[in-house]
Amino acid sequence: MTIEASRDAHTGGRIRLGMVGGGQGAFIGAVHRIAARLDDRYTLVAGALSSDPARAHASAVDLGLDPARAYDSFAAMAEAEAKRPDGIEAVSIVTPNHMHAPAAKAFLEAGIHVICDKPLSLTVAEAEELVALQRRTGRIFAVTHNYTGYPLVRQARAMVAAGELGKLRLVQVEYPQDWLAERAEESGSKQAEWRTDPARSGAGGCIGDIGTHAYNLAGFVTGLRARSLLADLTTFVEGRRLDDDVQILLRYEGGAKGMLWASQVAVGHENGLKLRVYGETGGLEWVQAEPNRMEFTRLGQPRQILTRNGAGAWDEATRVSRIPGGHPEGYLEAFATIYGEVAGAIVAARTGAAVDPQATFPTVEDGLDGMRFIEAAVASSRAGNVWTDLAPSN
Amino acid sequence: MTIEASRDAHTGGRIRLGMVGGGQGAFIGAVHRIAARLDDRYTLVAGALSSDPARAHASAVDLGLDPARAYDSFAAMAEAEAKRPDGIEAVSIVTPNHMHAPAAKAFLEAGIHVICDKPLSLTVAEAEELVALQRRTGRIFAVTHNYTGYPLVRQARAMVAAGELGKLRLVQVEYPQDWLAERAEESGSKQAEWRTDPARSGAGGCIGDIGTHAYNLAGFVTGLRARSLLADLTTFVEGRRLDDDVQILLRYEGGAKGMLWASQVAVGHENGLKLRVYGETGGLEWVQAEPNRMEFTRLGQPRQILTRNGAGAWDEATRVSRIPGGHPEGYLEAFATIYGEVAGAIVAARTGAAVDPQATFPTVEDGLDGMRFIEAAVASSRAGNVWTDLAPSN
Amino acid sequence: MTIEASRDAHTGGRIRLGMVGGGQGAFIGAVHRIAARLDDRYTLVAGALSSDPARAHASAVDLGLDPARAYDSFAAMAEAEAKRPDGIEAVSIVTPNHMHAPAAKAFLEAGIHVICDKPLSLTVAEAEELVALQRRTGRIFAVTHNYTGYPLVRQARAMVAAGELGKLRLVQVEYPQDWLAERAEESGSKQAEWRTDPARSGAGGCIGDIGTHAYNLAGFVTGLRARSLLADLTTFVEGRRLDDDVQILLRYEGGAKGMLWASQVAVGHENGLKLRVYGETGGLEWVQAEPNRMEFTRLGQPRQILTRNGAGAWDEATRVSRIPGGHPEGYLEAFATIYGEVAGAIVAARTGAAVDPQATFPTVEDGLDGMRFIEAAVASSRAGNVWTDLAPSN
Amino acid sequence: MTIEASRDAHTGGRIRLGMVGGGQGAFIGAVHRIAARLDDRYTLVAGALSSDPARAHASAVDLGLDPARAYDSFAAMAEAEAKRPDGIEAVSIVTPNHMHAPAAKAFLEAGIHVICDKPLSLTVAEAEELVALQRRTGRIFAVTHNYTGYPLVRQARAMVAAGELGKLRLVQVEYPQDWLAERAEESGSKQAEWRTDPARSGAGGCIGDIGTHAYNLAGFVTGLRARSLLADLTTFVEGRRLDDDVQILLRYEGGAKGMLWASQVAVGHENGLKLRVYGETGGLEWVQAEPNRMEFTRLGQPRQILTRNGAGAWDEATRVSRIPGGHPEGYLEAFATIYGEVAGAIVAARTGAAVDPQATFPTVEDGLDGMRFIEAAVASSRAGNVWTDLAPSN
Repeated sequence: MTIEASRDAHTGGRIRLGMVGGGQGAFIGAVHRIAARLDDRYTLVAGALSSDPARAHASAVDLGLDPARAYDSFAAMAEAEAKRPDGIEAVSIVTPNHMHAPAAKAFLEAGIHVICDKPLSLTVAEAEELVALQRRTGRIFAVTHNYTGYPLVRQARAMVAAGELGKLRLVQVEYPQDWLAERAEESGSKQAEWRTDPARSGAGGCIGDIGTHAYNLAGFVTGLRARSLLADLTTFVEGRRLDDDVQILLRYEGGAKGMLWASQVAVGHENGLKLRVYGETGGLEWVQAEPNRMEFTRLGQPRQILTRNGAGAWDEATRVSRIPGGHPEGYLEAFATIYGEVAGAIVAARTGAAVDPQATFPTVEDGLDGMRFIEAAVASSRAGNVWTDLAPSN
Repeated sequence: MTIEASRDAHTGGRIRLGMVGGGQGAFIGAVHRIAARLDDRYTLVAGALSSDPARAHASAVDLGLDPARAYDSFAAMAEAEAKRPDGIEAVSIVTPNHMHAPAAKAFLEAGIHVICDKPLSLTVAEAEELVALQRRTGRIFAVTHNYTGYPLVRQARAMVAAGELGKLRLVQVEYPQDWLAERAEESGSKQAEWRTDPARSGAGGCIGDIGTHAYNLAGFVTGLRARSLLADLTTFVEGRRLDDDVQILLRYEGGAKGMLWASQVAVGHENGLKLRVYGETGGLEWVQAEPNRMEFTRLGQPRQILTRNGAGAWDEATRVSRIPGGHPEGYLEAFATIYGEVAGAIVAARTGAAVDPQATFPTVEDGLDGMRFIEAAVASSRAGNVWTDLAPSN
Repeated sequence: MTIEASRDAHTGGRIRLGMVGGGQGAFIGAVHRIAARLDDRYTLVAGALSSDPARAHASAVDLGLDPARAYDSFAAMAEAEAKRPDGIEAVSIVTPNHMHAPAAKAFLEAGIHVICDKPLSLTVAEAEELVALQRRTGRIFAVTHNYTGYPLVRQARAMVAAGELGKLRLVQVEYPQDWLAERAEESGSKQAEWRTDPARSGAGGCIGDIGTHAYNLAGFVTGLRARSLLADLTTFVEGRRLDDDVQILLRYEGGAKGMLWASQVAVGHENGLKLRVYGETGGLEWVQAEPNRMEFTRLGQPRQILTRNGAGAWDEATRVSRIPGGHPEGYLEAFATIYGEVAGAIVAARTGAAVDPQATFPTVEDGLDGMRFIEAAVASSRAGNVWTDLAPSN
Repeated sequence: MTIEASRDAHTGGRIRLGMVGGGQGAFIGAVHRIAARLDDRYTLVAGALSSDPARAHASAVDLGLDPARAYDSFAAMAEAEAKRPDGIEAVSIVTPNHMHAPAAKAFLEAGIHVICDKPLSLTVAEAEELVALQRRTGRIFAVTHNYTGYPLVRQARAMVAAGELGKLRLVQVEYPQDWLAERAEESGSKQAEWRTDPARSGAGGCIGDIGTHAYNLAGFVTGLRARSLLADLTTFVEGRRLDDDVQILLRYEGGAKGMLWASQVAVGHENGLKLRVYGETGGLEWVQAEPNRMEFTRLGQPRQILTRNGAGAWDEATRVSRIPGGHPEGYLEAFATIYGEVAGAIVAARTGAAVDPQATFPTVEDGLDGMRFIEAAVASSRAGNVWTDLAPSN
């Protein structure tokens, strides 16, 4: 990967970025900023960093922003930045879920590219509106399903696409955590509070927070679209208002079947995202906590350990690797790769240059797909765990 | 563990054992014989080792049996041995599934203890008959769900029972294999032939062969009874007559929920039996391929690696360990432990002595439970993946 | 593997075995008995099970031996058994080290095959005598370097011999334990007492107990003879009379170099025997605690996980496997394989039949080689860690 | 960790950084730039990026530097930048080894802080000069032994210091690679060329490139100073001019003993840096390829898996973690932590503010210590593998 701004240096320099949310005390905002900075293709120049004006301004000072570009609201920011000749070209939306769609809408309408955290919105209807708006405005719209940025996830996708596993039969994906095994939302955890609050998170708890990541990852790697699902959502912790465990059966087009488990109460797991895919002639397995290795087996042959950028690396993985095999890359690098892919698209939009055909990032359509997944899972579970169609995403 | 016959030496010596099935070319028969021999508590003295008389006799010669006690049929063996003063006290039934019930019935009626491979029978009705007959005759009846013999499986069960995990919430159990990823039943594999033949295996393929093991193991460790299941059985390999993949949701008494996956087409897995159990305050994980370690986490504390007979070993594990930690025991030792537990029961029956309260082995009721699991899964799947009750096993 | 006595059934039946040592309270004796029994090729018929006559007899009763064949001393046993028409054909010597040579000598002279625990003797001189005596008597003499019985160790050896790694460059072998991290010899551990007592263990503590195993394993797999070593033996636990940690540099014929570390004070290790071998074109790694897998890399290709009796298994491993891949075999099975190989040799000696060319077991020469290793290491360490020749085992 | 420039925002903003080396085609330069950028505490403003003027300038354009601050030589850069009111405050030296000392000297003399790649110099004499010069100038001088930036390495050090392992006995450290298993220096690899060239690398090959890292890491974690070593350096690949394999015995003050192995020909290893430390009451193990976990055992208790920023994390690790446990951080983050620590020191130098007492980074003294290690190892090996003192770094 050209891991720095060099290409951009010849095509107009770093991308001017704004941010909504992510002020003092937030977590994911800092992750997005590091991701934007890591490959030196963005420069953060404006922010509506908190819904609390005082905090918004203090946060802007902390980050060294021009005070004139520290806004009280995303609406003010969209309006003002759209008028500046040096206004932001793209915005990162890193608020709790309920603000995603309103903010994204404002920036799209202001002609500004959007990078939005997941899940895309509170409802499928909102998500459909965003898809329509994105199409109308032609702006770039990325949703940060960041796990798709891991090099070996890219390689897994390429291997499946190239037929290395044969026709797919089975998908096993899981994402266990344990941080909500007790009632953390009553103990002062801001993260726990809003993620278990339907008003801010939407109809899904665990399903929206991490179930969507698992679902998205499986779809990304297999290239398969799920046709229907049968879900059982459970709230194990008494008094909690949203699900904290998700068990799902999936049926993919072409006959493959899947199981998806996501949990926030599985004691002993931090972020145990794991994907296994099995086809007629091969199987592979990747675990997010050790992302620099992937196990691959051809039927009848010994299991292989493929390493990021090591022996057996495919070009799709090497392209998004920054350092040689054996020196681990992690979560921030994968997140940065999403930002890097979006940067490539923005520069292409600036200059009319072609985009690298291997470039890919999750789009607003993927965000809509995730929302359909959430709504179908909630509906299936409420109906007594029955098969429920996942309406096509177009 | 007193790993040898010493106790028996004082209570009448080694147990006289017969075997049905397990002649030349069979696999599991040799496993049972090693298991019986390992702790020196049995002596094999009679056999109906094959349904083919010539092979039965040749096999008996190979094993050094008295030719007079090499029988052409289990019926002849049951009859003759029952009459001998030195007749067998117990019989191991290691035939394909369809012969289990008829043979077991014959030996029970002849007053001989039974050790029978799983699944117990072809149908629930047969299994119920065997339960009734066992009760009437009072003979010992073990079903070789051998994974329950692993020391750390014993410890896991004890830890759950002692409340180390708190109230249970989740059970994740899986048993992936890949040996039937292609149509091995057409390529001369005897194992594949009968295991995919409904006449010899019953209504379940993968579900009966390995799904039952996974189900039994989960029940053994958690001490929970499953109330209902929702199953999706699939035959991925074209032309195959039984399922080769099983996806199941489980609901346990007390509110715990489970997922069970068993597959014979998951490329890259040999015998990937893995159990994970999560409660309110702890979680544990055990993998059959590396049975001498188990991972255990108390909520909020670092994950621990418990080893067989090492630091952190419980008495329930040490009791059935033969060698110190760090020197691995395996499948044959676990199988031998089942035989050892049955031997203890037989000697107790001989002498009226008390049985060790920690002793345990899977019984005919567990076998019936397994048959109910198979039938419910097949019924659920045929009905379109709907919740199906597991009738209580008593 | 023909895992049972079938071949023997046609060639004179099970081998009549005696045992020296291994009575009540001993550990390794039971291991040898299980190993002898597992494949059903031996029958234990006599014993001098303890140097304490009362315990010797009680132990014999426990094991169901004919009281007439429970001896007070190995000398009495050798003399008496040699005269019986049904006398023992082989003896297992499982005493503390200082008794190995005297007992072995007595049985060789009585014309009885010997299976002796390691290290072979207290001194090189004793070992050389045994080699000479074995040659003169022509009896079979095995030394139980049991790790050489693991199927994947056999495969590793075969792969090296076949050139799969190219010319060898490096050997890294280690055997860390922690059971002597404190002064266990003062706390009533019989094992700790004699293993730290020069009178019973010889000049080496850790070096003799486990260092020899590591050295033997490296030699077995690589097929290389060590020319010289440079050793640093340390006693970390105050008051201990023998070394409890061993650091050694090795130079092999042909230019390969090695490092060997054995320790009884490495907190966190049970029996962490691990061997790594690197050649010009390949490298492999095997760990005793997980003996059913081995990692192998061809230069420039992904690392492979070879499994016992699974995909990628070589005939040398399959030959000594009892069950399919994915069902773990362990320490006792490896130990039993040594007994099985010796059984094959004894039957060949009985009948004049050819021995399987793949059969192999550690011999008295290997035992002598181990004694030379111990003495050279002790000498090198005492001389200030200087290069010391390992006299050729000619 | 305050992972961004916020503190600096109140104390004079980002640090103005220059770079020597690291132009087009180089590897480590980009790593340093990412490391400097990741936490947003530096801004790269000047460079002498190549010894080839044309490449130096083209590289500067790629990186978006002001062409006026793209220099042909480090000397010109030091001179010019020292005169600018907005001149660089610190310089990163990322050239081949032979340029480290001359460049570092020039910048120190110009009053500019130095961040220098390792090994520090070509000779101990040069290193001693640098130490003296650093003392005289009072400038900050960091040497990028980057592995000390990993959070769990920090925790390991803190645990040892707190006595969690008891008095230390043993250190086992290794760093195997395989990228020089063949004669890559003849195949056009620039990296291989200069790293095997004594004129550019110094007297050590493998010992200087990675042996020093292993040595530094062991010293950092244990807090022990090595008194002497006994080394065997080997060149396995014919025609190579420097060692490609290193075997070393170490003696630490206080009686601990160590083994160090580094290799560039160990087939199957990418960057297999692994450290194990054993004390009287505890042991720990950390592997660079999976840096987000560390295994720790208290004597007599089960092994624990400590995770970065998870349960069991110490403040010393959390302080330098950017994201929660379960989301892996890697090599670049650890490298960035070194830059972050240096930034803290530079800001403290600017403002007179106190430095965080937990802050630490490898200094010029550590660099000198590394050079003494290299020279002693080369001397020991040439003298026939004899104990050689490591002169105190006083």
